[in-house]
Amino acid sequence: MSTERLVVIGGDAAGLSAAAQARRLRGASELEIVVLEQGPEISYSACGIPYWIGGLVEDRDQLLARTPADFAAQDVVVRTGTRAEGIDLAARQVVVGGERLGYDSLVVATGGKPFRPPIAGLDADGVHGVHRLADGADIRAAIAAGAKRAVVLGGGYIGLEMAEVLQTRGLEVTVVLADPLPMAQLDDDMGEKVCAAMCAMGIDVQSNQPVREIEVGVDGAVRAVRTDEGSYDTDLVVLGLGMGPETTLAREAGLALGTTGAVDVAHTQRSRSHPEVFAAGDCAQTFHRITGEAIHVALGTHANKQGRVAGSVIGGRPARFSGVLGTAMTKVGDVEVARTGLCTTQAEEGGYDYRTELIESSTRAGYYPRAAPIHVKLITERGSGLLLGAQIVGGPGSAKRIDVFATAIWAGMHAEELAGADLSYAPPFSPTYDPVVVAARVASRVETG
Amino acid sequence: MSTERLVVIGGDAAGLSAAAQARRLRGASELEIVVLEQGPEISYSACGIPYWIGGLVEDRDQLLARTPADFAAQDVVVRTGTRAEGIDLAARQVVVGGERLGYDSLVVATGGKPFRPPIAGLDADGVHGVHRLADGADIRAAIAAGAKRAVVLGGGYIGLEMAEVLQTRGLEVTVVLADPLPMAQLDDDMGEKVCAAMCAMGIDVQSNQPVREIEVGVDGAVRAVRTDEGSYDTDLVVLGLGMGPETTLAREAGLALGTTGAVDVAHTQRSRSHPEVFAAGDCAQTFHRITGEAIHVALGTHANKQGRVAGSVIGGRPARFSGVLGTAMTKVGDVEVARTGLCTTQAEEGGYDYRTELIESSTRAGYYPRAAPIHVKLITERGSGLLLGAQIVGGPGSAKRIDVFATAIWAGMHAEELAGADLSYAPPFSPTYDPVVVAARVASRVETG
Repeated sequence: MSTERLVVIGGDAAGLSAAAQARRLRGASELEIVVLEQGPEISYSACGIPYWIGGLVEDRDQLLARTPADFAAQDVVVRTGTRAEGIDLAARQVVVGGERLGYDSLVVATGGKPFRPPIAGLDADGVHGVHRLADGADIRAAIAAGAKRAVVLGGGYIGLEMAEVLQTRGLEVTVVLADPLPMAQLDDDMGEKVCAAMCAMGIDVQSNQPVREIEVGVDGAVRAVRTDEGSYDTDLVVLGLGMGPETTLAREAGLALGTTGAVDVAHTQRSRSHPEVFAAGDCAQTFHRITGEAIHVALGTHANKQGRVAGSVIGGRPARFSGVLGTAMTKVGDVEVARTGLCTTQAEEGGYDYRTELIESSTRAGYYPRAAPIHVKLITERGSGLLLGAQIVGGPGSAKRIDVFATAIWAGMHAEELAGADLSYAPPFSPTYDPVVVAARVASRVETG
Repeated sequence: MSTERLVVIGGDAAGLSAAAQARRLRGASELEIVVLEQGPEISYSACGIPYWIGGLVEDRDQLLARTPADFAAQDVVVRTGTRAEGIDLAARQVVVGGERLGYDSLVVATGGKPFRPPIAGLDADGVHGVHRLADGADIRAAIAAGAKRAVVLGGGYIGLEMAEVLQTRGLEVTVVLADPLPMAQLDDDMGEKVCAAMCAMGIDVQSNQPVREIEVGVDGAVRAVRTDEGSYDTDLVVLGLGMGPETTLAREAGLALGTTGAVDVAHTQRSRSHPEVFAAGDCAQTFHRITGEAIHVALGTHANKQGRVAGSVIGGRPARFSGVLGTAMTKVGDVEVARTGLCTTQAEEGGYDYRTELIESSTRAGYYPRAAPIHVKLITERGSGLLLGAQIVGGPGSAKRIDVFATAIWAGMHAEELAGADLSYAPPFSPTYDPVVVAARVASRVETG
């Protein structure tokens, strides 16, 4: 005899984590759980789509972590192909298929949507996001059908990954950037290293060129991408301009949105306007661990954790989301890129009195085979040496080192403390002083003279 | 006009770091610095010797980081081939070449020495340590001369590395252990995984067999290694039984030694009996960051840092060494091994009320090529969830993750805090929840229910 019902809108990372955690804490006799997913699948890895397109993953189903049957076994009802048409906040009902499904608790996990520039031609055949599995299937089909040239719009994580995998598949790739450099989340001096690596791979990078139009042929298919400086012939356009929150349903229902345009939630993931409603994942606003400022970050790790927080609270156990540092990583060819915390621009805007140090070291002992250069940039508070941010660009083995900085920043460590920490060393894995330690030492030496 | 003289005994990591740091803080007009090194070279990477033997490094000189000329350019006099014969603590003089060299400050950095079991035959031709460059040259020569079989005594870091590289060079390798398992610094369940990996590589592991004798042929060369259970024919014996402190000079002079047999020093690296004398590196006792207990750890990272502390203090700037966690790493074939903090035995001995969690995850997203299993074991304080120790055994990309735990333990974090930290994710580098986070989550869930 269920006495309460939890409805979850969205069957991916955030929604499913919420459902699973709520079920873990409250059995089916206490809480009925219904998940509504508009698409044909649940629980797919959007981050894996570029690698499926690149042929590193051949079987689409490998990107599916869990199935509706898995959830059915836990007494969680998952309805795929079922679009929530509206939310009646006053009546506590979701409108679905013309009917009304009542809820006691609601989790809005509607995810994100790729940014689309306001230009003509964006709906032409051959223009693709990299968001849904269907996008991946479409791009794979285009390659199989003989696409020779691709233009990637944007140089963020998706842009870089798509440029890499399309080139691997034999296409000529042009990346068109509105900004001067790829990876706007990095400082310019680090972004330049990424840009140089892309160019060295033979990727054509066209900077400072907001796209003006997608030129479409008489057959309705994309033909070229036009900017103020040129027109780039192409068979395929990929949108890599970042992800915004998908909030149509929330906004129309009257849920409060935050300054970022995402659903405004407390640290418990409760809606600030309607406490029986939770939002989690790419549709929800969150906050920066260091500055406390509201931000929007679309990333599976946060989605999972926020969903779990919502599920815990619904399940009766106190829980809070602890914020994000903006940790992120990717690779393009053999060059790995990672960042965490505040970059220079963010430190500036945040009013921090900061300094930066950039060091070059080696991924392994210098004499060990395949030792590669690694560049580490640290942003610290002037005077105290408090760690504020870090950026890494380097060869294989570089990027995961960002987790040491993320952990240190999470714990509120200062450069000098990190410089003294007992980090690991063996010639196949690092120089005697790990590049992380070298950066922390240089930053602390500036403070201690 | 130098008014003071610093004498450093030992021209490797600790001694040279002390000299360089003292010089950085005090110019040649204030402080004369003389480094005495008994060997022919300074500043060599002992950790690199196995890889030189393995042929991964072909040129011996690649293992030399700095030369006497580098130091001469900084007004630091380095005398190689110069053995300090005694220290007259009362007169503040070092006896060298029959003469006496006065000092105002003295840094004892005499390093370590390989443990030698008390058995017959240890001085035979074909029995080698892996400590000096000359050891490496001797083993390379033995391989070049046609050695076919090798017995490695001991299964610590050097033992594992030597077993790997000798096998790579085509030798049949037997590892003889007094203990039941290799890597005594790991818990048994993790050591078993390392042992299985070695066996799978074709390395013959003979456990629970203290060596009784090195059998020597009539030509004076090693012929076999005998234990209570068998006799293992061999052309080559490698000592991988660990390193003790080299304290002959210090002991004879009357410097106080600690409970570990190494030179007893304060956190400033000052001798506890003679404050104008410092000791640093493999000859010095140090302390465990968590338990505060005196320990001896021979490792280049600590030697560098301790030398730097001594040099700072001598240079007039306050400095303290912050202790060790026992962080260490190595690899055998494709299997990476790392540990930090307390293992179960140490937690037990330290009187901690602890619990352990062992998880298995994947080095990359499960669908990404070359994703490999990774095992993470966490030791936490029962109730509080305070992180006490971590161990990792897994495929390529596993070991360096230990630095996240080392940093978290250094900062005094609890499992739940680490579980919430914003660590990096991208499919080529980790599953959505990094194995580090998975382990911390499991450990914190035990506490929070």
